[in-house]
Amino acid sequence: MAGNTFGKAFRVTTWGESHGTGVGAVIDGCPPGIVLDPLLLQAEMDRRRPGQGGASSPRKEPDRIELLSGIFTPEGEELPQTTGTPISLAIFNKDAHSKSYDTLRDIFRPGHGDITYLKKYGIRDHRGGGRASARETAARVAAGAVAKQVLLAHNVEVCAYTVALGGVKIKTRDLQILGDNRFFCPDSEAAEKMEERVLEVRKQGDTLGGIVEITASCPAGLGEPVFDKLEAELAHGLMSIGAVKGVEVGAGFGVAEMLGSENNDSIIPDGFSGNNAGGILAGISNGDTIVLRVAVKPIPSIAKVQKSINLANEEVEIQVGGRHDISAIPRIIPVCEAMVRLTLVDHLLRQTALLRGE
Amino acid sequence: MAGNTFGKAFRVTTWGESHGTGVGAVIDGCPPGIVLDPLLLQAEMDRRRPGQGGASSPRKEPDRIELLSGIFTPEGEELPQTTGTPISLAIFNKDAHSKSYDTLRDIFRPGHGDITYLKKYGIRDHRGGGRASARETAARVAAGAVAKQVLLAHNVEVCAYTVALGGVKIKTRDLQILGDNRFFCPDSEAAEKMEERVLEVRKQGDTLGGIVEITASCPAGLGEPVFDKLEAELAHGLMSIGAVKGVEVGAGFGVAEMLGSENNDSIIPDGFSGNNAGGILAGISNGDTIVLRVAVKPIPSIAKVQKSINLANEEVEIQVGGRHDISAIPRIIPVCEAMVRLTLVDHLLRQTALLRGE
Amino acid sequence: MAGNTFGKAFRVTTWGESHGTGVGAVIDGCPPGIVLDPLLLQAEMDRRRPGQGGASSPRKEPDRIELLSGIFTPEGEELPQTTGTPISLAIFNKDAHSKSYDTLRDIFRPGHGDITYLKKYGIRDHRGGGRASARETAARVAAGAVAKQVLLAHNVEVCAYTVALGGVKIKTRDLQILGDNRFFCPDSEAAEKMEERVLEVRKQGDTLGGIVEITASCPAGLGEPVFDKLEAELAHGLMSIGAVKGVEVGAGFGVAEMLGSENNDSIIPDGFSGNNAGGILAGISNGDTIVLRVAVKPIPSIAKVQKSINLANEEVEIQVGGRHDISAIPRIIPVCEAMVRLTLVDHLLRQTALLRGE
Amino acid sequence: MAGNTFGKAFRVTTWGESHGTGVGAVIDGCPPGIVLDPLLLQAEMDRRRPGQGGASSPRKEPDRIELLSGIFTPEGEELPQTTGTPISLAIFNKDAHSKSYDTLRDIFRPGHGDITYLKKYGIRDHRGGGRASARETAARVAAGAVAKQVLLAHNVEVCAYTVALGGVKIKTRDLQILGDNRFFCPDSEAAEKMEERVLEVRKQGDTLGGIVEITASCPAGLGEPVFDKLEAELAHGLMSIGAVKGVEVGAGFGVAEMLGSENNDSIIPDGFSGNNAGGILAGISNGDTIVLRVAVKPIPSIAKVQKSINLANEEVEIQVGGRHDISAIPRIIPVCEAMVRLTLVDHLLRQTALLRGE
Repeated sequence: MAGNTFGKAFRVTTWGESHGTGVGAVIDGCPPGIVLDPLLLQAEMDRRRPGQGGASSPRKEPDRIELLSGIFTPEGEELPQTTGTPISLAIFNKDAHSKSYDTLRDIFRPGHGDITYLKKYGIRDHRGGGRASARETAARVAAGAVAKQVLLAHNVEVCAYTVALGGVKIKTRDLQILGDNRFFCPDSEAAEKMEERVLEVRKQGDTLGGIVEITASCPAGLGEPVFDKLEAELAHGLMSIGAVKGVEVGAGFGVAEMLGSENNDSIIPDGFSGNNAGGILAGISNGDTIVLRVAVKPIPSIAKVQKSINLANEEVEIQVGGRHDISAIPRIIPVCEAMVRLTLVDHLLRQTALLRGE
Repeated sequence: MAGNTFGKAFRVTTWGESHGTGVGAVIDGCPPGIVLDPLLLQAEMDRRRPGQGGASSPRKEPDRIELLSGIFTPEGEELPQTTGTPISLAIFNKDAHSKSYDTLRDIFRPGHGDITYLKKYGIRDHRGGGRASARETAARVAAGAVAKQVLLAHNVEVCAYTVALGGVKIKTRDLQILGDNRFFCPDSEAAEKMEERVLEVRKQGDTLGGIVEITASCPAGLGEPVFDKLEAELAHGLMSIGAVKGVEVGAGFGVAEMLGSENNDSIIPDGFSGNNAGGILAGISNGDTIVLRVAVKPIPSIAKVQKSINLANEEVEIQVGGRHDISAIPRIIPVCEAMVRLTLVDHLLRQTALLRGE
Repeated sequence: MAGNTFGKAFRVTTWGESHGTGVGAVIDGCPPGIVLDPLLLQAEMDRRRPGQGGASSPRKEPDRIELLSGIFTPEGEELPQTTGTPISLAIFNKDAHSKSYDTLRDIFRPGHGDITYLKKYGIRDHRGGGRASARETAARVAAGAVAKQVLLAHNVEVCAYTVALGGVKIKTRDLQILGDNRFFCPDSEAAEKMEERVLEVRKQGDTLGGIVEITASCPAGLGEPVFDKLEAELAHGLMSIGAVKGVEVGAGFGVAEMLGSENNDSIIPDGFSGNNAGGILAGISNGDTIVLRVAVKPIPSIAKVQKSINLANEEVEIQVGGRHDISAIPRIIPVCEAMVRLTLVDHLLRQTALLRGE
Repeated sequence: MAGNTFGKAFRVTTWGESHGTGVGAVIDGCPPGIVLDPLLLQAEMDRRRPGQGGASSPRKEPDRIELLSGIFTPEGEELPQTTGTPISLAIFNKDAHSKSYDTLRDIFRPGHGDITYLKKYGIRDHRGGGRASARETAARVAAGAVAKQVLLAHNVEVCAYTVALGGVKIKTRDLQILGDNRFFCPDSEAAEKMEERVLEVRKQGDTLGGIVEITASCPAGLGEPVFDKLEAELAHGLMSIGAVKGVEVGAGFGVAEMLGSENNDSIIPDGFSGNNAGGILAGISNGDTIVLRVAVKPIPSIAKVQKSINLANEEVEIQVGGRHDISAIPRIIPVCEAMVRLTLVDHLLRQTALLRGE
């Protein structure tokens, strides 16, 4: 059983490779009657688009979402609405330079899925990482943009930002300034240091890791114990993003050094006195803000010479060409938001009114 | 859609509450012909049984697994074998003291699911946490014991141990001595300090958090991109354990401060030069040891007085009685092993031979 | 991937064999707050119990449902309510005579799953058909009894009855008299002829087939195109009953000889002018009565001598002993009702209010 | 939970409406290394294409399959192969005349899903039936064409043909002549009478029903009791086709009048003495030919005046224009084959070698 579908009620199945015709998704289970403004959807896509600055890959893709089904514009309306039938969306490739990957046909890049894809499937599309390329996440962001429209109707808002990059950590959290720097960093001083760190490492031909924090407003009651607890599904979604190597909720790994009396959030008539829980208790959202953090590994495609092997199991040296970013941050940020949105909308729909006998 | 089933090919559905008739599981999809030695299954159960020492809860439960279906002892054999039909197993309760929870009928315990269960379902079994009790994990361990027998035939072995407790961290890893201390700690000096820390905190009426590391030998090729990547499903399974607030694979959150050239594991003819990847590349096991760590929060049931509210939304003070542990460690260790086993056996069965055209 | 779970929102996983410890089911997804009166549940069980008359098997099983989890009796209430957590139920075996099957250990009974179970699984529990026994349906009826309580709150009522047995067909449909004869036949004259036919065939050591009709009141809007159309899921559920070899909805196979103008039900302000559609249009219930019919094959365990083979692939003669019915009718009737109920409750819960933006 | 996915191991999710951009499917779980010859895929599509004769709709669609992902042509090979990643395929619309449906915007056509779609979703794409159009089956046939290539490697062949149309029944079965008449009818005399019947009814402005039989060679062991029995899943798939009102396997409804001694197929060293079972015993294929029949209702779009209601619940007269067939036969035949193929390939992949401990 393959695993290209996410969600049980709002089911997203993605398809596509880096250098094929494009990437896309089919969403089955989107409620009918949701207005889908193409401009709003495109705005989400534009946030993860490559080629946005000196630290990003120069691959130019307009990344235009095309909606192929599941929508209908009722007579007298201007914008299309969902009909409750499957929404097929596609982002067709425009600027794929497959030739630049020809030298990699017989070599496994360290830190990439080249070797595991071949071991698993016995055949692989070596062009640009094939299915394992970060380009696949464009489909996630597109589906997440649809999910966003459903969530807004339920006052669920998701926001991700950089809290660490290349060893530089934020000291303040001003979510109003996220748009002021290209790292979506809530601390302007830290953002400047991150900029310096990126330039420095770019010269070395190396890449950087970091940490992204994601918050979400969320009504109480979402999450399905005991296996589909909200934090378990959020971790599933976030860990399915290529560069993510760790996920934590609320106080996260910090709990290892806390006492129970420190970690417990007291319950008060208005809610909770603190939020070490990260908005989730026993797998169910408690009404407080959901807080998550993910560890993002440095991009494995570095300009430095590395050791590897070829198809004949011989040692080789490899220097990855192509067009690559210095860090998955900031382009991973809308992807993190998308996975959190897809998880929350799925649980919103799983939490039916009928479950309360209404 | 409720969420009490784990896995897609080796599907485990658990049931039961802390103070009901018992807990249990139905396993659908276990291959036929697997020998199930009742003594081996029971040995796994005994590792998570309460009442094993001064740091553990005094609740005495024999936790005897009963196999209700799915097995058959062929003529001439001594031990039962699986038949490929659903395996129903139950652990019936013997020592449930529901009365000790009567005072909690109208009060929400901080750090527990009391309040979220009521918000979600509109009704709750307040006795011992009901479905949200750690007692539920007995069914996971039982199912994991069955999974272990399937995995052993494929040379997959899973081992979990304590790497931090109450601020005490291990400095060495000698997996041979795990049985020598009650924390399943691979560093005997650290184990002694943990012991001291537990005694100290017990006197204070408080509880401790820690970190558990889980390793697994695993053939290459397991994991189903792009959403059911192996690390994503492992994170899902581990995060579904009540006390877990974070999961990381390989270098984990450490990647945030690493360069790409440091983090990449070079590929060599025999495998890899390092294991920052934690045995997984692009969502597929690479043949190296799988390495995971989970953050375990302090048990929220502390003896100290805490602030909370009651059903009438009035402020109250609460002091949790009942019989409780100081830390979810070590009893969470076999639960972590169980969730990793259930994930790996599921992916082993999802990875069919037919997928390679055989 | 094994297939012992039915439903997606109201998920029923059954377990158990004819001569093991018993049979049972776990229901995941039952809404909380449903009152479960043990007497009402037991009344459903009693309808399919063996040993009810001269035409039925003399095996005596009290078939008592035990509810092992998922219920709680709130303070001040008399009857237990569902809590939204998994409902585990079991019917333990009391009167299993395994010894009477010893002669069948090495022989495949014609018309039974003996040979296919062995081919598929490589091992089989030969006692009483093992998992393939009709005894397995006791768990379906028990789960269906729980579903019935949920459906009643939504005015969905299901009723099955015999319309043909051994060539005797009904000519009138008086659903008030179903309880007056042991075939749940709505035509008393036909019921008498069926009785004669049964006695006649019993003497010959043979068995009889028939047709059961099932009707259900149902609100409009249930069913999930294009694959999980309501009739498709109903057919799935009914065809999963051992003896069923055909399913039809509304005019059924009769449509093959109808013109479009005859078959179309005109739409009128109050509903429809006829019900050839059987209450379903394009996979979605239309508010009219759902009408289904299933073909029930003669029980394959006949007293006559038959030809078969043994494990060594040698020709043998076989005369099936044990305790068997002359026809799966009437005991299959509550099983048909159960499968229709499980399908309808599943679709009721899949049809969430949120799907309409509410 | 919507229902646009079929299968569990070979998962097909379809999308698209009659008059949108097109229809398509994503296949997740196709084994890697399967050669996909575009000409062979297209040949399957051409069998269900409209506009093939006087009895068929004059809508002209080339119905060209485009493969958007999941394939790769290895260096030195001429034909693409599957890679184990999702196969996205699309058939874009070319000849959709939406205007001809404008008069139907406010009226419900009898026998169609117009009224139920509106009741369920609260919004509907009225153009050509929207999602409920038979055009949706083009995506099924395309996915079935991929399944066919996987099945051929396992010697599974599926063949469907007409056994009754408008009251004309076949008397002989010569599968060699199926291509000689446009009904895929195995009896040339019957085919001539069917032709006459079609012409006659066309003049009357009416339409015809019929019966299609489907056979499949199939290895023993497919099918997953107790709910996903092979016949149950086949019935599910076939009943999900718009015009199908009944499904039967083997002797089907004929069993209602048979004795057990007549219906049982004796087991012989080579297989079975007969095939009343239709190739399936206790939900598992027995190695004999699988035999199914489906009842196909007359197309509801008739040229005659019918009674119906409009959105205001007022009585209206309706005469359906557009371009329509006289019978769903023969165009439903490749759709039936597709659904049987999708079911069989799914069960082939669910029946993993590991299940036998290999």
